[in-house]
Amino acid sequence: MSGSLIIAGLGPGNPAMVTPEVTLALSEATDIVGYIPYVARITPRPGLTLHPSDNRVELNRALHALQMAQSGQRVVVVSSGDPGVFAMASAVFEAVEAHPQFATLDIRVLPGITAMLAAAAALGAPLGHDFCAINLSDNLKPWALIERRLRLAAQADFAMAFYNPRSASRPDTFTQVLHTLRQDCEPTRLISFARAVSTPDQHLLTVTLEQAQPEMADMRTVVIVGNSATRRIGPHVYTPRSAG
Amino acid sequence: MSGSLIIAGLGPGNPAMVTPEVTLALSEATDIVGYIPYVARITPRPGLTLHPSDNRVELNRALHALQMAQSGQRVVVVSSGDPGVFAMASAVFEAVEAHPQFATLDIRVLPGITAMLAAAAALGAPLGHDFCAINLSDNLKPWALIERRLRLAAQADFAMAFYNPRSASRPDTFTQVLHTLRQDCEPTRLISFARAVSTPDQHLLTVTLEQAQPEMADMRTVVIVGNSATRRIGPHVYTPRSAG
Repeated sequence: MSGSLIIAGLGPGNPAMVTPEVTLALSEATDIVGYIPYVARITPRPGLTLHPSDNRVELNRALHALQMAQSGQRVVVVSSGDPGVFAMASAVFEAVEAHPQFATLDIRVLPGITAMLAAAAALGAPLGHDFCAINLSDNLKPWALIERRLRLAAQADFAMAFYNPRSASRPDTFTQVLHTLRQDCEPTRLISFARAVSTPDQHLLTVTLEQAQPEMADMRTVVIVGNSATRRIGPHVYTPRSAG
Repeated sequence: MSGSLIIAGLGPGNPAMVTPEVTLALSEATDIVGYIPYVARITPRPGLTLHPSDNRVELNRALHALQMAQSGQRVVVVSSGDPGVFAMASAVFEAVEAHPQFATLDIRVLPGITAMLAAAAALGAPLGHDFCAINLSDNLKPWALIERRLRLAAQADFAMAFYNPRSASRPDTFTQVLHTLRQDCEPTRLISFARAVSTPDQHLLTVTLEQAQPEMADMRTVVIVGNSATRRIGPHVYTPRSAG
């Protein structure tokens, strides 16, 4: 029996943002693997086994999913947002690289609406020109590299989207991020805090860099920093298509 | 009578990647506005007027959509991919800024699966770490700024996604892009050419920067350049979550 592994993006939270191909994959799965709150979004049904797991065990979770697929199951690993953006897709491929017996498995990635693009849409169009996406967690990279990327992104005048800006284990690093941005960006630069985008808890806040406070971000927030031309128009924030 | 304007993302081409909220908005629209090939993806029905327009008339198209919404119509402006990524959302807000009489209109943006994330999913997970997105068209920005962003992005060791890498009117600029990348990236750096992603014409090609040829890209191609750690595993290309 030939199993399969699909890594699927559930989008930012609103069920109306889940693509039909992801819904179909979920309906055909025998096993769903993922972080507890994401697996909680799947409706149970006969023939489907849910395997929720805790945060920070991505490689174990990936290995478990690969083993079940190898044994013939139709496994779907679920991620919030898009699985290829700071989520489970890379973790699965890391596990395959470490365990070559899985290299011949049928593995597919199904994209989803990633948090920064849902946040950008809710705000207007702040990522309408060249931009970058940076994960501000230093779990898997040195802090100096994050600082370096922030400086170079500011010099390039990229708009920037930040994932994982702040967490209980890193309450102070976002203070440092704001400090670094203030060295290279003007005080009136717009910065938006988009919390729990597309869910009933959605909260949007746009301020100037000068006004920004670390407490405006938490682990459910995506932060979007405009480029030097980003502006407000009515209730919206947008970055024009032209520059220079 | 109160009209509305929705700017909706149709995704990269596969109907199974259109989100339910976009499908609902299309079903409730009285008027659909957009570039000819995108409007061609909408099924005609009684009560719906299609307004296809040519490329490079984004501001006129936006103005037309705003005028119809102002007069009470339920207008949907369609974009390929995500409307907030090098697409119609910024053009609509530019038009609102230039014509303040539209500032009180009900305007919403509905995200879609943008080409780079569909391409990344089809390839594996090449954007699984920090990355940037750059529009290589110099219609709306000076070429020197594109060059500068490429250099800084390479120095930051971002993975990079390029939109509009090459067109009939700019057959040679992508040659210059490859030349610039070769100055800052090693010859074995992976570069992927993803053409017509998610459609029956989909074609994926991954080579080293040394092997890359300008002709590998055309106007339907998204190009993804890995970071220094991006690698192949079986048929897939992925960027590990850790760095440094």
